[in-house]
Amino acid sequence: MPDTPLPPAAALPMGSLSALLAPRSVAVIGASGDATRIGGRPIAYMQSLGYQGRILPVNPKHGMVQGLPAFASVAELPEVPEAAIIAVPAAAAGPALQQLAERGVKAAIMFSAGFAEMGEAGEAEQDRMVAAARAHGMRLLGPNCLGLFNARTGFYGTFTSSLERGTPKPGPIGIASQSGAYGMHLFGLARDHGLGLSCVVTTGNEADLNVGHMIGWMAQDPDTEVIAAYAEGIRDAESFLAALELARRNRKPVVMMKVGRSAVGSAAARSHTASIAGDDAVTDAVLAEYGVVRARTTEEMLDIARLAARRIYPAGNSLGVLTISGGAGVLISDAAEAVDLPMPPMPEAAQQALRDALPYCAPQNPVDCTAQALNDLSLVGTFAKSLVEQGGYSSILSFFTHAGGAASVAPRLRQELAAVRAAHPDRLFVLSVLAEPEMVRQFEADGFTVFEDPSRAVAAIHAMGRYGESFARAAPPPPAALPPITLPATTPSEAEAKRILAQAGIPAAPEETCATAEAAVAAAERIGFPVVLKILSPDILHKSEIGGVLLNVSDAAAVREGFSLLLQRAKEAAPAARIEGVLVAKQLSGGVECILGVHRDPVFGPVAMFGLGGIFVEILKDVSFRRCPFGEAEAEEMIRSIKGFPLLAGARGRPPADIDALKKMLSRLSVFAHQAGPRLAGIDLNPVFAMPAGQGAFAADAVIDIAEDAP
Amino acid sequence: MPDTPLPPAAALPMGSLSALLAPRSVAVIGASGDATRIGGRPIAYMQSLGYQGRILPVNPKHGMVQGLPAFASVAELPEVPEAAIIAVPAAAAGPALQQLAERGVKAAIMFSAGFAEMGEAGEAEQDRMVAAARAHGMRLLGPNCLGLFNARTGFYGTFTSSLERGTPKPGPIGIASQSGAYGMHLFGLARDHGLGLSCVVTTGNEADLNVGHMIGWMAQDPDTEVIAAYAEGIRDAESFLAALELARRNRKPVVMMKVGRSAVGSAAARSHTASIAGDDAVTDAVLAEYGVVRARTTEEMLDIARLAARRIYPAGNSLGVLTISGGAGVLISDAAEAVDLPMPPMPEAAQQALRDALPYCAPQNPVDCTAQALNDLSLVGTFAKSLVEQGGYSSILSFFTHAGGAASVAPRLRQELAAVRAAHPDRLFVLSVLAEPEMVRQFEADGFTVFEDPSRAVAAIHAMGRYGESFARAAPPPPAALPPITLPATTPSEAEAKRILAQAGIPAAPEETCATAEAAVAAAERIGFPVVLKILSPDILHKSEIGGVLLNVSDAAAVREGFSLLLQRAKEAAPAARIEGVLVAKQLSGGVECILGVHRDPVFGPVAMFGLGGIFVEILKDVSFRRCPFGEAEAEEMIRSIKGFPLLAGARGRPPADIDALKKMLSRLSVFAHQAGPRLAGIDLNPVFAMPAGQGAFAADAVIDIAEDAP
Repeated sequence: MPDTPLPPAAALPMGSLSALLAPRSVAVIGASGDATRIGGRPIAYMQSLGYQGRILPVNPKHGMVQGLPAFASVAELPEVPEAAIIAVPAAAAGPALQQLAERGVKAAIMFSAGFAEMGEAGEAEQDRMVAAARAHGMRLLGPNCLGLFNARTGFYGTFTSSLERGTPKPGPIGIASQSGAYGMHLFGLARDHGLGLSCVVTTGNEADLNVGHMIGWMAQDPDTEVIAAYAEGIRDAESFLAALELARRNRKPVVMMKVGRSAVGSAAARSHTASIAGDDAVTDAVLAEYGVVRARTTEEMLDIARLAARRIYPAGNSLGVLTISGGAGVLISDAAEAVDLPMPPMPEAAQQALRDALPYCAPQNPVDCTAQALNDLSLVGTFAKSLVEQGGYSSILSFFTHAGGAASVAPRLRQELAAVRAAHPDRLFVLSVLAEPEMVRQFEADGFTVFEDPSRAVAAIHAMGRYGESFARAAPPPPAALPPITLPATTPSEAEAKRILAQAGIPAAPEETCATAEAAVAAAERIGFPVVLKILSPDILHKSEIGGVLLNVSDAAAVREGFSLLLQRAKEAAPAARIEGVLVAKQLSGGVECILGVHRDPVFGPVAMFGLGGIFVEILKDVSFRRCPFGEAEAEEMIRSIKGFPLLAGARGRPPADIDALKKMLSRLSVFAHQAGPRLAGIDLNPVFAMPAGQGAFAADAVIDIAEDAP
Repeated sequence: MPDTPLPPAAALPMGSLSALLAPRSVAVIGASGDATRIGGRPIAYMQSLGYQGRILPVNPKHGMVQGLPAFASVAELPEVPEAAIIAVPAAAAGPALQQLAERGVKAAIMFSAGFAEMGEAGEAEQDRMVAAARAHGMRLLGPNCLGLFNARTGFYGTFTSSLERGTPKPGPIGIASQSGAYGMHLFGLARDHGLGLSCVVTTGNEADLNVGHMIGWMAQDPDTEVIAAYAEGIRDAESFLAALELARRNRKPVVMMKVGRSAVGSAAARSHTASIAGDDAVTDAVLAEYGVVRARTTEEMLDIARLAARRIYPAGNSLGVLTISGGAGVLISDAAEAVDLPMPPMPEAAQQALRDALPYCAPQNPVDCTAQALNDLSLVGTFAKSLVEQGGYSSILSFFTHAGGAASVAPRLRQELAAVRAAHPDRLFVLSVLAEPEMVRQFEADGFTVFEDPSRAVAAIHAMGRYGESFARAAPPPPAALPPITLPATTPSEAEAKRILAQAGIPAAPEETCATAEAAVAAAERIGFPVVLKILSPDILHKSEIGGVLLNVSDAAAVREGFSLLLQRAKEAAPAARIEGVLVAKQLSGGVECILGVHRDPVFGPVAMFGLGGIFVEILKDVSFRRCPFGEAEAEEMIRSIKGFPLLAGARGRPPADIDALKKMLSRLSVFAHQAGPRLAGIDLNPVFAMPAGQGAFAADAVIDIAEDAP
């Protein structure tokens, strides 16, 4: 497993972000003597929470601010601070930033609002600020953000009032949130529930730095072991993906809420594939690719972060359950089954040994030691040991409800459980008990993570296994490159599209372009009946809508008749269309109809889609996605992950389809899309016939959509 | 809306259950002077928690127990108590029960374990106890249960140690749980989270009384407004369904966890339909039929119960969101979309008015009043009023995070929100704030239900709308009866099955039974080519498996040839089969292939299934279920609820299918199955062709499976 950090990518400027997140000195522009005001709060927090660096208040009116000497302007600062907080109205913020950049300040946190979120003028001013910062090598957090804090160093570059209800407990969890209010809501929840935090960063308008940069910094920060992120959109794929890769290599789990599940706007839906692809499904695919667990709710995110702080990530996770309630055991089994977390039974000999120890126990898994074990707590030790040693489960969830928190039970229970845990520190131990906070703290100190609700415990345990698998899996090797690809200037005809794809090893059904009826008959005789006839025109993209496709054409006379019918229909439907002739193709039969496509995601670039044809795609949305390019192993995963996969595997008496050919085709399509560059708007291969194993897979239609307005 | 309670059904003996749940006197058999022992705890709890009835300890050794005069035996009790608690070992429990029953005690709570859960001998002893109780009109709770308590009367017929961590707050929520330990876990959680409880009952082995009886009692109990239930299995459909119907008529929401999602065992899978139907899907369908919300987790159950205690159940629910965080607004919108809770936009004029009041607000819905509103809290009132009055939403969720709990904000915020609520007491108001417990209590006292997590709030709000719809909907009229049905003695042939179904108005494709090849030709000519030929034998159930079906037989010669081929195949595959001839049927084309079926659920009796044919059923499990019998409206709901419904509605250029004919067929099938009685094991109509609208729906195959061992 790769434990050595990658050298920081260009997208992840570690040095200057340390100036932002752990500065040795900070100027506060708009410093206020009133500790409840935006310009006063950071100073008050830093002074009361132990910031060891120098605070340099800037305020034209006051010589002293909250007991510190203040300076009238940036120019009068006696030294160049590493960082600056800008807490002045929008009109004054730009000039302050300019002065700070010119003096060589490395990082600025801008609370001020009134920029891109307010419309075009604000956006232009924001762009000017970024340009000024970049010209001097300064990084900018915000504007319109709630800032950040570092619980280890006491650097509180934030004006959130959330700190008034309590300060963070230092610990291994870092939070990065685009939304200021929601980020501080997360912080408040984390604090109230006792989670230890390294830092909390809100990125606001993300004019320069974004959530991806923060994840990248935390991936390299020795004080952060677990990263929780919240975003409404991903601003920049490069920094985001580099950060996720770095986190994975450094074995730091990332749990993320990505909200805003709207479908791709119709304007973006240039191709059939694009109209099916919601950006949310693409986000799912990208996060899964990097081993990020996507949380559906805030609670789930914090549950996962809390358990992840134990730093036990079992690859090949399995769950053993110890319970004093059969009902809870069934409930936990249901929850585990719902997320596909395996609960294999205990070995037969171990079951017998437990029955010998306690005749009326239910020792299979869940292992029900019944309330009897509360009368003789050594039984709890016996059962827990057996689960770990004979059962061999990576994760152990024990349900003791209020009994586990009772004063008469808890001390001895702790002793029994702690002995088992001490002998097996590699296992993940989770408890579901109802207990007073102090009792919970004691169990937690013993190395047990406590969840009131066993269902939530199961979801968190499952996530640990997903991290383990992601950390254990090496990043897949890049797929082989294709010969250089030259796209035509405009969207090509079907035949031309197939020719271009064939050069990339993406085969179509045998076919010939024919300018005359007689040529079509000759081609059909060469290819073999039955054939398909299709009108061929660069101006008619969706042929079937105008009746431009004839199936099962079975003899020469029918070819002649079909040829004229197609020309006639094309003339009626699209009189101005350039007609290049008629395509005569082999009619494939006995294959499974699939659809392979690519669309360009506005953030992540070309994304490939795989699904079965017809209703599977259009009604059931049973498709899988992956960012291009990828190899055959990942293509096969995509193919196997759809619900309808049994149809390809040979369900209902069909012969198994040629998955090998299909995965080659899908992988090559992804490489093609990647190499083709931004002028490629999309590709639809619909249908593709996956023939019986050994007989290949062939596109029966192909559309390559060229973005004529792309660079 | 029916507000009058139904007269108690036979399955719901209100009188004797009042003796169980609110007795005026109680004997404790096995009473102990040690308040920590099983026979001591109930007495200690009742004495300290204000039970006003008489407690009569029974203990052969002691004259006084916990300060109360004790009696040496049941016979020596100076009066007949209404109820008795049996807290003696299993061997003594049966005799005690017998004596109590003979003395005329109306209800017994048996803690003792060692009966049906221990095997056959225990089960026989348990059956004997039930018989003894029934002979004297006594009802029995348990054995092997943790008992019950009634928080209003202080009757604590339980030995749970969970009460040591705190006592319940009286309130409107009743809990019924089969599992003792999990029931008391629920109680502990409810208490810790401040939910008000009327009673908690655990039913244990359910030898006599079960969770259904308890729901039925609570449905009639004036102190219980909301019912939360937990069960691993439903013991008796009659009492369970009568209780759910009573709860619905009395407008008492039921939220239920039904755990144990195992598939129907293969032994029960006699028919094709039965092998698809998991009992869990049937449970889902039955609970939905009665408007019960099925909770996936304990937290969800308690969240729903807590919000339901407000007794506001909006039919046609809609959600208006007021937020100070755009991020939270997006997250809430995602959560609402995930459960199909509508969030329509604010009217345009109202949006403009809000923009006039606060230029940079986002007034659509979610309505983001931004942190600005915290500087001028009258804006919160303005916005909330507009959501309620102009937006017209049934439910309002306001997100204020820690700001809503801040001492500087909360009092004025409460004032603004409370004024709006007071003017609109019919709306459901929910707050998401982080605040100290005392602050939360104040908001709750104002009529706002507080959730830390907005996603959980959305799930609970959604459930209130489901209750509203269920309460508003009258129980559907019973479907018209069919003429009396006489099932044959054994599983009939396909032709006979179709004839029986046709008499019930369930049509098959036109067909004739033919004994000779020439008769088959004549029949095919009458019916019209192409036809289908099928071997006809009561001994061959699955014809296609032996090649016994020929499709698209297109002329007389092919009929002759097919006839002999089928006879030959039948002879080879099943030499002993009785051959009745060959069925000649119209080959239907242009229809949508469906499957209609019935299987007998061990608890709920005949259950109908609807799905599309082939892969939809076998691979995608895209089917709907409903308990038989039901009318056409419910049949149509079943048809419309499958994911593949667009195929019937006319997707992909097909003509819309004849839904009218299909729903008639499905409803009649359900009535048929209901009237046919327990000898009907199952029915498979597979495929059924739903022809284009106006052209009917016809079964192309029919199997009626007779349970030859049924009564």
